[in-house]
Amino acid sequence: MCDIFSISDFQKNELDENQRKEAEFIRQQVENQILEWQKLDINTKIVCITSGGTSVPLEKNTVRSIENFSTGQRGAISAEEFLKRGYKVIFLNRKKSLQPFCWKYQVEKIFDQGFDLCQQDVQLYQNYKSSILKISFEKVQDYLSLVLVISECIGKNPYSKNMAIYLAAAVSDFYIPIDKMVSHKIQSTDNEQGLVVKLDNVPKCLKKIKELANEAKVISFKLETDNTILKDKVLSSFKKYGVDIIIGNLLSNTRFEVYLYQKISETNNIDKDILCEHIKQEKDSDQLIESKLIESLVKRLEAY
Amino acid sequence: MCDIFSISDFQKNELDENQRKEAEFIRQQVENQILEWQKLDINTKIVCITSGGTSVPLEKNTVRSIENFSTGQRGAISAEEFLKRGYKVIFLNRKKSLQPFCWKYQVEKIFDQGFDLCQQDVQLYQNYKSSILKISFEKVQDYLSLVLVISECIGKNPYSKNMAIYLAAAVSDFYIPIDKMVSHKIQSTDNEQGLVVKLDNVPKCLKKIKELANEAKVISFKLETDNTILKDKVLSSFKKYGVDIIIGNLLSNTRFEVYLYQKISETNNIDKDILCEHIKQEKDSDQLIESKLIESLVKRLEAY
Repeated sequence: MCDIFSISDFQKNELDENQRKEAEFIRQQVENQILEWQKLDINTKIVCITSGGTSVPLEKNTVRSIENFSTGQRGAISAEEFLKRGYKVIFLNRKKSLQPFCWKYQVEKIFDQGFDLCQQDVQLYQNYKSSILKISFEKVQDYLSLVLVISECIGKNPYSKNMAIYLAAAVSDFYIPIDKMVSHKIQSTDNEQGLVVKLDNVPKCLKKIKELANEAKVISFKLETDNTILKDKVLSSFKKYGVDIIIGNLLSNTRFEVYLYQKISETNNIDKDILCEHIKQEKDSDQLIESKLIESLVKRLEAY
Repeated sequence: MCDIFSISDFQKNELDENQRKEAEFIRQQVENQILEWQKLDINTKIVCITSGGTSVPLEKNTVRSIENFSTGQRGAISAEEFLKRGYKVIFLNRKKSLQPFCWKYQVEKIFDQGFDLCQQDVQLYQNYKSSILKISFEKVQDYLSLVLVISECIGKNPYSKNMAIYLAAAVSDFYIPIDKMVSHKIQSTDNEQGLVVKLDNVPKCLKKIKELANEAKVISFKLETDNTILKDKVLSSFKKYGVDIIIGNLLSNTRFEVYLYQKISETNNIDKDILCEHIKQEKDSDQLIESKLIESLVKRLEAY
C-alpha cells in the first residue's frame, strides 16, 4: 500500500491537468527559492513544514467533505520557532489555516481591540517574510502531490543534509477516488434511510517522502486519541516508513504534552534503537510547547 | 421524518447535559436581548440569521468530521444588509465562520497592508455592535438545538410579526447518532480495505421552526449543484415545510445569481401560488448580490 506504484497510480488517476500544471509551477518556485536562499548562505538550514488538515470531497461539485481536525496552530507556531532559530521555511499549509505570527489573532478581535495589540507580531511577520515560502492546499490529492514535489526538490539539492521535512499536517487516511465520486450534491430525499459512504485508503506517502528526501531528515507526527496505543503506533511507523523522528501526541493534551521518538541505532532491539523524550509544559505557563519541542529538535538535527 | 417527535427524540438522544444547559442559557440571553431592543423601540424589526456550515463528527473524540461547504460569507453580508436597513440581528453562526464587516479581511492581509485598509469597516462594525447578538455553533446537534430555541423565543414574543428567520446556514442532511459513534480515532490499519461510514438522516427542522415562529416569516435557502432540479426542490420544500420565502441558488454561480420564491396565495395551483424573482448581478460589478436580495426581501417582509 505504501509503495511507489500506488502513489504514482494515485497521482495518475486523481490529478487532472490543471493540478499537474500547478504542481510543476510549484516545483519551479521551490527550486528557485531554495537556490535564492542558498545564494545568501550556501549552508542555510531549510525545513519544509506541512500544516493543517486535508479535505476529502464527497461530491465532484463539492457541497460536503470529510475534514481532519486541525486548525494549523501547531504548524504555524513550529514555523515561528524554526524561523527564530535561523531556518528558512517552506510552509505547505491548508488554505485559510492559521499562519505564523498571525495565529493568535482574529479579524474580529483586531476590530474590537485595535491594531496596537498585534504590533510586535506584525514586526516579526515582516522581519521573517523573505525567509518563508508559503504554498497552500485543500484536497488530500493536492497535498500528496505537493509534499512529494517539495520532498523531491529537497532531496535533489546537493545540500539536502542541511534540510528537514516536518510533517505536522493532519492527512486523511480515507478518500473517495474520483471515478467513484458522484457529480452532484447527494440528495437527502434519495436517501431517506440514511447514507452509506464508502471510502478507499489513501496511499501512505511517508516511505516515499523519506526516499525522495535523500539526506534531509524526516520528522512525522502521530496523533491518537487513545493513550494505550500511541507507543505501538509510533514503533510500527518507524518500521514501516523509516522516518528519522516521530512526534507522538494525544488529542486531549496535545498543547501540553508530546513525546519525541528518535531512531538512534539499528540493532533491531526496539528499546535500544529508539530514544524517547517526554516534553511537557505546565498548563498555566506562558511558554508554548512548540518552543521546547523545536529547541530539542533543532539540537538533534544539528547533531546528526 | 419532519415531525415534532423526531426532533424532540433527536434532542433527547443527541444532547448531553452541558449542551442542554447551554441552550437554556442562550434562551435567556436571546429573550433578554429582544426585550432590551424592544425597550428602545417596541416596533423594532428583528431577524435571526443562521450562517456557516454544520459539522458532523465521525468519532466521539473527534479527529474527523463531515463538513458542509460554507464560509459564512452569504450570512455575514446578509447581516450587514439587514443592519443597514434598521434591523436588529440575532446571528447564529458557525464558530470561526466569516463575520459581518470583517469578512473581507484576513489577519495576514491586515499584517501585510496595515490597518488603515479596514478603517471604514471598523467604524461600521463598532456602530452596529449593539444591534447584533452573536451565538455560535459547531456540530449539527448544537445548531438544531439553538435554532429551535431562538425560533421559540421569537414566536413567543408578542411582536413576532416584526420578526423574521433567515436560514442561510448549510445544515448537514446526514449524521452519525451518538450511540452508533466510535469513541476513538478510526484506524487506517484496522481498515486496510477502506472504510464504510453509515449515516442516518438528520430530522428536518424547517416545519418545526415555522410552527414555533408564530407570526415571524421564515426564509429558507435551497442550494443545489444541478440546475435541472432546483425549481422542483424549491416547490417541494414549500409543500413540505410551509415556509414563506425560499431563496434558490446554484453552487456554481451563487455569488451572482439567486431566485427568490415567495408563496403569495394558497390555491393549490403552484404556478399562481408561487412568485419567482430572478436576482442577478453582473460579475464585474462592485455591488454584492446580497444587497439586491435583502433590498427585495425587506420590501416583501414589510408588505405582509
